[in-house]
Amino acid sequence: MTLDPARHDPADPEGAIKAAAQRVSNWGRWGSEDVHGTLNFLDDDKRRAAAALVHAGTPYSLSQSFDMDGPQKGWRRRTNPIHTMLDTGTDHVAGVQGFPHGIGGADDVITMPLQCSTQWDGLGHIFSHGRAWNDRPADQVVSGLGDAVTGIETVGALMCGRGVLLDVGRAVRSDGELPDGYAISERDLEETIRVQGPTSNVGAGDIVIVRTGQLTRVRRSLAAGDGWGDYAGGPAPGLSFGTVDWLHRTQIAAIATDTWGFEVRPNEFHDAFQPLHQVAIPHLGLFIGEMWDADELAAACATDGRYEFLLTAAPLMVTGAVGAPVHPIALR
Amino acid sequence: MTLDPARHDPADPEGAIKAAAQRVSNWGRWGSEDVHGTLNFLDDDKRRAAAALVHAGTPYSLSQSFDMDGPQKGWRRRTNPIHTMLDTGTDHVAGVQGFPHGIGGADDVITMPLQCSTQWDGLGHIFSHGRAWNDRPADQVVSGLGDAVTGIETVGALMCGRGVLLDVGRAVRSDGELPDGYAISERDLEETIRVQGPTSNVGAGDIVIVRTGQLTRVRRSLAAGDGWGDYAGGPAPGLSFGTVDWLHRTQIAAIATDTWGFEVRPNEFHDAFQPLHQVAIPHLGLFIGEMWDADELAAACATDGRYEFLLTAAPLMVTGAVGAPVHPIALR
Amino acid sequence: MTLDPARHDPADPEGAIKAAAQRVSNWGRWGSEDVHGTLNFLDDDKRRAAAALVHAGTPYSLSQSFDMDGPQKGWRRRTNPIHTMLDTGTDHVAGVQGFPHGIGGADDVITMPLQCSTQWDGLGHIFSHGRAWNDRPADQVVSGLGDAVTGIETVGALMCGRGVLLDVGRAVRSDGELPDGYAISERDLEETIRVQGPTSNVGAGDIVIVRTGQLTRVRRSLAAGDGWGDYAGGPAPGLSFGTVDWLHRTQIAAIATDTWGFEVRPNEFHDAFQPLHQVAIPHLGLFIGEMWDADELAAACATDGRYEFLLTAAPLMVTGAVGAPVHPIALR
Amino acid sequence: MTLDPARHDPADPEGAIKAAAQRVSNWGRWGSEDVHGTLNFLDDDKRRAAAALVHAGTPYSLSQSFDMDGPQKGWRRRTNPIHTMLDTGTDHVAGVQGFPHGIGGADDVITMPLQCSTQWDGLGHIFSHGRAWNDRPADQVVSGLGDAVTGIETVGALMCGRGVLLDVGRAVRSDGELPDGYAISERDLEETIRVQGPTSNVGAGDIVIVRTGQLTRVRRSLAAGDGWGDYAGGPAPGLSFGTVDWLHRTQIAAIATDTWGFEVRPNEFHDAFQPLHQVAIPHLGLFIGEMWDADELAAACATDGRYEFLLTAAPLMVTGAVGAPVHPIALR
Repeated sequence: MTLDPARHDPADPEGAIKAAAQRVSNWGRWGSEDVHGTLNFLDDDKRRAAAALVHAGTPYSLSQSFDMDGPQKGWRRRTNPIHTMLDTGTDHVAGVQGFPHGIGGADDVITMPLQCSTQWDGLGHIFSHGRAWNDRPADQVVSGLGDAVTGIETVGALMCGRGVLLDVGRAVRSDGELPDGYAISERDLEETIRVQGPTSNVGAGDIVIVRTGQLTRVRRSLAAGDGWGDYAGGPAPGLSFGTVDWLHRTQIAAIATDTWGFEVRPNEFHDAFQPLHQVAIPHLGLFIGEMWDADELAAACATDGRYEFLLTAAPLMVTGAVGAPVHPIALR
Repeated sequence: MTLDPARHDPADPEGAIKAAAQRVSNWGRWGSEDVHGTLNFLDDDKRRAAAALVHAGTPYSLSQSFDMDGPQKGWRRRTNPIHTMLDTGTDHVAGVQGFPHGIGGADDVITMPLQCSTQWDGLGHIFSHGRAWNDRPADQVVSGLGDAVTGIETVGALMCGRGVLLDVGRAVRSDGELPDGYAISERDLEETIRVQGPTSNVGAGDIVIVRTGQLTRVRRSLAAGDGWGDYAGGPAPGLSFGTVDWLHRTQIAAIATDTWGFEVRPNEFHDAFQPLHQVAIPHLGLFIGEMWDADELAAACATDGRYEFLLTAAPLMVTGAVGAPVHPIALR
Repeated sequence: MTLDPARHDPADPEGAIKAAAQRVSNWGRWGSEDVHGTLNFLDDDKRRAAAALVHAGTPYSLSQSFDMDGPQKGWRRRTNPIHTMLDTGTDHVAGVQGFPHGIGGADDVITMPLQCSTQWDGLGHIFSHGRAWNDRPADQVVSGLGDAVTGIETVGALMCGRGVLLDVGRAVRSDGELPDGYAISERDLEETIRVQGPTSNVGAGDIVIVRTGQLTRVRRSLAAGDGWGDYAGGPAPGLSFGTVDWLHRTQIAAIATDTWGFEVRPNEFHDAFQPLHQVAIPHLGLFIGEMWDADELAAACATDGRYEFLLTAAPLMVTGAVGAPVHPIALR
Repeated sequence: MTLDPARHDPADPEGAIKAAAQRVSNWGRWGSEDVHGTLNFLDDDKRRAAAALVHAGTPYSLSQSFDMDGPQKGWRRRTNPIHTMLDTGTDHVAGVQGFPHGIGGADDVITMPLQCSTQWDGLGHIFSHGRAWNDRPADQVVSGLGDAVTGIETVGALMCGRGVLLDVGRAVRSDGELPDGYAISERDLEETIRVQGPTSNVGAGDIVIVRTGQLTRVRRSLAAGDGWGDYAGGPAPGLSFGTVDWLHRTQIAAIATDTWGFEVRPNEFHDAFQPLHQVAIPHLGLFIGEMWDADELAAACATDGRYEFLLTAAPLMVTGAVGAPVHPIALR
């Protein structure tokens, strides 16, 4: 249990959320028109410095797959992607395509929730008591027509900067995997930084990637034929509600995890649902990445002790989206 | 007319394709199991050198939008993306979402052809006389189940390296825009490199971005309320079939344009369809990007005369896809 | 112009709608829990009588096609259906399906707006000043989760009864086609009944099909290669706002037309959008069918002078849908 | 075990299929151009007679629901329908729709496999050794572009005639439910007809509905919160391969069951997949309905002993579909 009972009554998530929102709110910090939230902390100087971190030139993909065999189970209609073909090689060989001079083609289509796999939450993804980021009325921001104000396209090009891997799983547990339900505390984060050394220092404008190790565990399950289990929404390690002040104080630009839901599940309050999201997105204006795959990157970082890199993670430019798939690349 | 009549009979695309394929084929070059094609020319040393090209740290998005207002007209069922909402801010305000402690959420879904907007063609996208890249039988590579061999996921993490902008529109035409139907010749490419200076030199492993200026023209039309016109498949500037040897000789890793179809349209042969694709993809193993937006990047390059940069353009990891959307970021 | 200026001020659609709603409202008529609206007028006795109308046993399809070549242009994201294959005969022949003993299969998928082609509007399709059918608050009936109260599944099995064709096009115009913009008045409806004779009498529980002839005209355009034109939302013949009292007085169960929008377009008021819908659906509780194809049926009726038949038009049972595709069959 | 070992070697499905196909093939029976298959047995006289069977005028829906909570588990990408909203009542109340005079609207979209719920198999759904119905080459009939010859639209209007319910579950088992894996034999079918009486006689042009009772069992499971289990593809009662001669001899126009797969599962041969389909669809040209809900109808039939009725079951007119959803209505 990482919630400090002196500060948080587990029976009162609403009170805790209200108090935290008052402490950490960034509403108005960058003007009433702002749509960039914590990405305001990330500027070109920081990007230039991040490029200078590239030593070997090796790219690491932090993306999971997008396909029917994913973890989604249809919660609130979040399904796995359905990928189908419009044209195929078998059609080409059958001679039914009608193209000249022996050319043939294949083409495909996808239907998918934008948050079905590796993704960024946009600022229109979560509301608190009717308000969206920067104190806007939620129903004037996101309707059935999409996000009219903070659509993911407003930040698409900005998601590039210094990435820092905090391999909490490896720093805190000898087997490298936090158990499901483990709430990562501020102390865990700081201890991870200490263990990993100075390349892990976290500051303004950084994009932090937290590896819990849950995906490593799920990958073993998949390899054994036992499926994803409850990766999508079930018990999982993740950030404690108590880290909200750290998220604010460090002035990070964004944060991502290898889990479905970023924060610890079950949530730390009774009858609660993603309380840290409720503060982090609409009040902090923080960008949250979920379902990232940090395992290969973590192995490389562990080998040479360098936990910082150039991270490029520009979301797909879907106009009006409240979240979007992304293929993050860490270049070390 | 850029086709050399001494080499190409416009009435015989099949013959020209056959001859070109024999000259430039990379089949077997990297072994019979290869799925990386020309990405074999791009290694970590080149990526490290590319990162060193970053001066100002300014990111440039090379992505067009993904939405219903795109250029697609349904040719072979290539439609524009349909983006709909699963949950909304209006639902949150109406109190119908059923979440506790004042949290609300929005979520979305997309249905789209994978090549509807800014995208990479994968090696399974085009076939020639029943064969796919590396002389594989097309019907054993791409069926209704997707690309079983060269799916875009096999190269997803590799699309990061030195980008070079060849602003042919600006180098060749005073108004910066090649007219529709203009076939870019090898001489145009070399002249552009000469005009732009040594930062434009093109070599092994580079990712070349050719700006024709057509998108600039279309953007004016859109601003005037006149729509996309025939951007999707109509007349357009693009590479001449005659550049196929240059594409081969330079050993570039990939190439992208600001047009729908990469090569000049109408195609340079009678009764032809994308003949350069038929050589470049299945025979060369070349990765082709289409519908990229190079205008902001081109303006920046023209200002300081530096046409090289770090390009990160990792396609969405759709398992078995023969092409995939991408958000390319040029970091200068 | 069929609006009676003594009753309707074309500059005041809101006033006309309000007055009409007060005259014809069925709110509370069948109790506060009702979800069947005017289908309450259609009972088993009427269905039995309708079955007795079958003379020849010939079925007539009143359905248009569902495919990419439809009339939709993307207005409010109403596209044409996208039909793709999961498995194909070409895959079977290529031997990639993996089934035993020589069996092969084909399977398909569709993505479509539920109102893209021949369809029924459900009672949750239109609201008036925040209220849905039977005076329910619109935001408690239809959210992003669908129609929680009057979803089309609540009436799916009831859409079977006596159909009556009112071939207004043929009765009123010598060429059988009302011009676009023609507002069908109550007098036109009554004149059509008189011309067609007693098999056309309209009474409680009937399902009325109005043929305007617009689809006949569009079909010629399609055959000539000139496309759908503005069939989806453009100028069209249709019912005048002034018919609202006839719709109420006759106690019909439902009504359908061969047009996109049922009522005349442009609408008869300045700055208006589908004012008859606003009274007919939320206030009358009337079921409206659109984009039906009555041409073959009309030809048969004209031949033998019988305009009544058994109509079976059960919408697809999509849970929570505010409208649904249907394949209506008239059995004569 | 209902397979007669004298005729069928369970280790040799291929041989059994070949022998059966030779006995019952309808190839050429209605000419080489035929696309109607066994629907040729159903004519207007039979439809007129069917209409005369209507006594009470009560309609019975034989449709299951189309929604996310269906039985599909993604086998070969057959998912449950995804229904989302384009416009909603909550948007209307939030005032973001932009319509005049107080009108608001809701609209929806669906993505679904065409065989996800209550459906007809078209003649292009199954192939045998490279051949489709009427000895056509499968790869010339169904490609990624759809079914170019026997698309469901070719028979859409014909699916109306005399329906006969064979409640095998009730006739054969005291609890009204055949156990999973129960193979319905020709003797079971004839015994059901005998028990039910002369209104159940089956002859040329009839549409037979076989109730196994499996859906009744699954419905109990759903009510208990235990889900669909393996309804989609798992063990189920269904027709024995041995009924193929009865299907042929009776000259029925079509047949439907309340199960996922029509024939008994597991199939009666070792290493087999839907062997009865392989004969019934491509060789017999028989239309097969699956996932129908016959429970309410069966209760009514059991009450008054009349098992025949007018059945209208016109599939959705999806151009080129190899199967299509349908809302079948039995009018008694």
